[in-house]
Amino acid sequence: MKIGFIGLGNMGAPMASNLLKAGHELTVFDLMQDAVDKAVSEGATAAADIPTVARSGAELIITMLPAARHVKGVYLDEDGLLAHVPKGVHLIDSSTIDPMTARDVAAKAAAQGNPMLDAPVSGGTGGAQAGTLTFMVGGEDQEFAFARPVLENMGRNIVHCGAAGNGQVAKMANNMLLGISMIGAAEAMSLGVSMGMDPEVLAGVINTSSGRCWSTDTYNPYPGVIETAPSNRGYTGGFGMDLMIKDLGLATEAAKATGQPVVMGGLAQQLYQSMSFEGHGHLDFSAIIKRYMKDEE
Amino acid sequence: MKIGFIGLGNMGAPMASNLLKAGHELTVFDLMQDAVDKAVSEGATAAADIPTVARSGAELIITMLPAARHVKGVYLDEDGLLAHVPKGVHLIDSSTIDPMTARDVAAKAAAQGNPMLDAPVSGGTGGAQAGTLTFMVGGEDQEFAFARPVLENMGRNIVHCGAAGNGQVAKMANNMLLGISMIGAAEAMSLGVSMGMDPEVLAGVINTSSGRCWSTDTYNPYPGVIETAPSNRGYTGGFGMDLMIKDLGLATEAAKATGQPVVMGGLAQQLYQSMSFEGHGHLDFSAIIKRYMKDEE
Amino acid sequence: MKIGFIGLGNMGAPMASNLLKAGHELTVFDLMQDAVDKAVSEGATAAADIPTVARSGAELIITMLPAARHVKGVYLDEDGLLAHVPKGVHLIDSSTIDPMTARDVAAKAAAQGNPMLDAPVSGGTGGAQAGTLTFMVGGEDQEFAFARPVLENMGRNIVHCGAAGNGQVAKMANNMLLGISMIGAAEAMSLGVSMGMDPEVLAGVINTSSGRCWSTDTYNPYPGVIETAPSNRGYTGGFGMDLMIKDLGLATEAAKATGQPVVMGGLAQQLYQSMSFEGHGHLDFSAIIKRYMKDEE
Amino acid sequence: MKIGFIGLGNMGAPMASNLLKAGHELTVFDLMQDAVDKAVSEGATAAADIPTVARSGAELIITMLPAARHVKGVYLDEDGLLAHVPKGVHLIDSSTIDPMTARDVAAKAAAQGNPMLDAPVSGGTGGAQAGTLTFMVGGEDQEFAFARPVLENMGRNIVHCGAAGNGQVAKMANNMLLGISMIGAAEAMSLGVSMGMDPEVLAGVINTSSGRCWSTDTYNPYPGVIETAPSNRGYTGGFGMDLMIKDLGLATEAAKATGQPVVMGGLAQQLYQSMSFEGHGHLDFSAIIKRYMKDEE
Repeated sequence: MKIGFIGLGNMGAPMASNLLKAGHELTVFDLMQDAVDKAVSEGATAAADIPTVARSGAELIITMLPAARHVKGVYLDEDGLLAHVPKGVHLIDSSTIDPMTARDVAAKAAAQGNPMLDAPVSGGTGGAQAGTLTFMVGGEDQEFAFARPVLENMGRNIVHCGAAGNGQVAKMANNMLLGISMIGAAEAMSLGVSMGMDPEVLAGVINTSSGRCWSTDTYNPYPGVIETAPSNRGYTGGFGMDLMIKDLGLATEAAKATGQPVVMGGLAQQLYQSMSFEGHGHLDFSAIIKRYMKDEE
Repeated sequence: MKIGFIGLGNMGAPMASNLLKAGHELTVFDLMQDAVDKAVSEGATAAADIPTVARSGAELIITMLPAARHVKGVYLDEDGLLAHVPKGVHLIDSSTIDPMTARDVAAKAAAQGNPMLDAPVSGGTGGAQAGTLTFMVGGEDQEFAFARPVLENMGRNIVHCGAAGNGQVAKMANNMLLGISMIGAAEAMSLGVSMGMDPEVLAGVINTSSGRCWSTDTYNPYPGVIETAPSNRGYTGGFGMDLMIKDLGLATEAAKATGQPVVMGGLAQQLYQSMSFEGHGHLDFSAIIKRYMKDEE
Repeated sequence: MKIGFIGLGNMGAPMASNLLKAGHELTVFDLMQDAVDKAVSEGATAAADIPTVARSGAELIITMLPAARHVKGVYLDEDGLLAHVPKGVHLIDSSTIDPMTARDVAAKAAAQGNPMLDAPVSGGTGGAQAGTLTFMVGGEDQEFAFARPVLENMGRNIVHCGAAGNGQVAKMANNMLLGISMIGAAEAMSLGVSMGMDPEVLAGVINTSSGRCWSTDTYNPYPGVIETAPSNRGYTGGFGMDLMIKDLGLATEAAKATGQPVVMGGLAQQLYQSMSFEGHGHLDFSAIIKRYMKDEE
Repeated sequence: MKIGFIGLGNMGAPMASNLLKAGHELTVFDLMQDAVDKAVSEGATAAADIPTVARSGAELIITMLPAARHVKGVYLDEDGLLAHVPKGVHLIDSSTIDPMTARDVAAKAAAQGNPMLDAPVSGGTGGAQAGTLTFMVGGEDQEFAFARPVLENMGRNIVHCGAAGNGQVAKMANNMLLGISMIGAAEAMSLGVSMGMDPEVLAGVINTSSGRCWSTDTYNPYPGVIETAPSNRGYTGGFGMDLMIKDLGLATEAAKATGQPVVMGGLAQQLYQSMSFEGHGHLDFSAIIKRYMKDEE
């Protein structure tokens, strides 16, 4: 398929590579020339600007951008996609942004005859490279059916979450819960160990009991419990704390906009912010446990 | 085996029944005559007081009591177990209490030649009746080996958590994390649904992602998601909110005693307390989601 | 002085009245015709649109608008103030908005030769009518000196808080602290009374001790303590809870933008949001004490 | 008057000195011989044990002890006051403990004919030395009238808070609010300064507005604002963070016992605990602002 791809950052670049490997024809755009050059060396065609991508003959255009303001710019500016893309071209935005913006852009696209999906991902740069991302997709059934095969070239788990914006809602809700349960895991592990338990034994009990969660059985923040977790490599790699803060910010903003309280979500955002404020924002988010461990402090 | 059993409440009564069914000879004591009568009708022998249980010739005495002050009374009073039990008799306390008291009582018992285990349970009254409780056990290896077969007559999952008191530590840490992740689950589910997602679809996404936890995949607080969860029967049955408040109180007390912070644990305690204050303490603890759902309020 | 005034809502209307009473010549604009008619009946001249106000010959234009998006619209749109106002005309925005937007608009105004102040107020509609508002003003010294006499026609306490945007910063910081200490006051009063103290005696102790704050000595949330407080009239009038939520939202947003943690500020926002979610957002913000009082629930 | 005095620690020693200076005849007891020697050098008579104080002919016995367990021991043990004091001797406990224990001990004393007051103090060691303490007193009117002149020898502000235990309730409620508003002050000051405000200007605005509290106008945690505050001497002296943690622990315990939620109180306890955990417990409690200041970290 002829595909346009805008946004070749840490996530977008390996996603584009996987599309090229799957045999698609790609026209790409990014502000960083290095990123464009690398994609071209893998077989992509470079476009000089966004309107060129829009009019490249692509049947589908995918965007992968850092935040809502970039999505608004790329889609809604005078020199943006919507002003230049031919009717009928399909659009997928894989950026992680607030659902309100996602719905607004999708509605404008649909109104001019461009069906659009929001399809944020989880799985990190590792998943992007390995092609094992999870895509949480919001939009029409038939549009989801159309996009699925392409998304499967980049991910393993493609989930339809309902109407436009629901991909963002699902990711936001999941990550808020993740942010909360990681702090809960950090507090429970640290409390238990401070009172004399062996961390592996404690994790064993929790992981077969009602406290069990991904943050204890797969990504345990206490060093020495899960071999593959960032806690075993100095909290490097993984899911950066500042990204968790961004996602919790999306959740609390969305909650504010709908008048929904998120008491623990709000506290979690502040506790990670406090750690980042003290200089730990570049570490994996499970480094929040440093707040609760004497030796690590 | 000849066994003494003190405390025939909602949990103790079915536990004693299961020991009788397994063929043990039981001498029982409780302040409630009805509870004693029922045990006697199942084959137990009634004791008039605690010293009588102590001197009944039992090789092992099990206690199942509401709180630390009862444990102190039953074990340490002048008319209590330690003052009257022959040297060498084994002791197991299955009450859920703070680790400091558990360790103190166990040390006093050991000092006079009575090896003691703390063995709090999870699984509720349903698990007590079905004999499928989980026992979290603290104490010496050889003592654990001795007690295990008896505990297996009452439970399915018998976990050795380390030295004396560690059974309490493990339960406390697990339940604190459970209390936190349930509120996280309630907030994430409510936020997602309030923004347009179907609750089952949302639970499906979370349960295959990093937000996954027992509170979402087994005991989801949103009605209609997990058929067997209390959320599908008006939050009746299950694990009472006031019991969760008790367990969070044990965790924050223990944390205070050791100088360990538990920021989310402390907030969780207050949020459940706030719901109980408004009259919901008798409901299952997952009813905390009422705080976040418009229609339920 | 010839003054333009845009925004004749609950606050703007009485502010404009006080300027008219002080002898100024006013050209006014609002989308609500009723509000305009009333101002005209008091001696103002109506303008058909914003450019008309801009070119009315006013030496100073004051705006009083609900939120940042209205401020951006009124100042920055094609038909907005900056596009039409003659060089040298002074500008004052009395809306309560985030400091980043305030600084952005002020910088754009200054760049084209229109000195601008941000001057949010406290004191509520009562203070607006009585002309006793407090103005927290951000901007240049000479501009503050120019504006002060006009602001004194509308308020009693005119405070220069530093450079552009600092008026907003001061109000935001003050109101965040207010939101926190009001919940603290509600918890302390309710706890003390629930344990047997007379509310007036308790307030008396606190107000002469280290817990003393405006929320206890002037605006005590416990009914019967301060005669003039909203707690004595069913939490009507006063400073609406939804406005407090808005201000706490500004504070947490600003904190997020600067990477500053506000742990209690974030929790306060969520606790008021939770009360508003249950239908109490129209009450005075001190009604948060209903969460802590049995009889009021 | 002949007075017995038990507990000559940092607070008790200067209180006893002031009683001696006022001309009272003192019989004292403390476990630390140094403290006793010093009191004797000032004119007191040493007692060998608590029963000796009880039977020394004192008309009134005052105790000043670290925590509830010491109060229980001194009053209720076999060798304690109640077992040996003659009927009619007046008792005052100035320790800061939970209201439940205070009421329990007072009821036992009253039952055997010894009227008792709880009279915890505020004002710190400075106030104890200067004789300017505040006494918050719980107990009968006539007993308060009897004790007042003696308390006035040690303090300046003697407040009757109602029936037995209410002195403790008042102190607990006040200090919980203090602990909350200090964190609020720290967050508000730091947020404002991080966004460009001068700390003195910001404090000036707050102190004439609705955010005003003792923590901003008398004890501001931001260095350079209030000359006499601990923030201007490296957070030394003042009211130790670990003492604030103790008082917040009393408040959350009391709230738990009465089923009252204290959401912010619980969070405040954990936030101070977190700072103490990192080694700052010996500093003045206003050092919580270090959590929010870049340069101080």
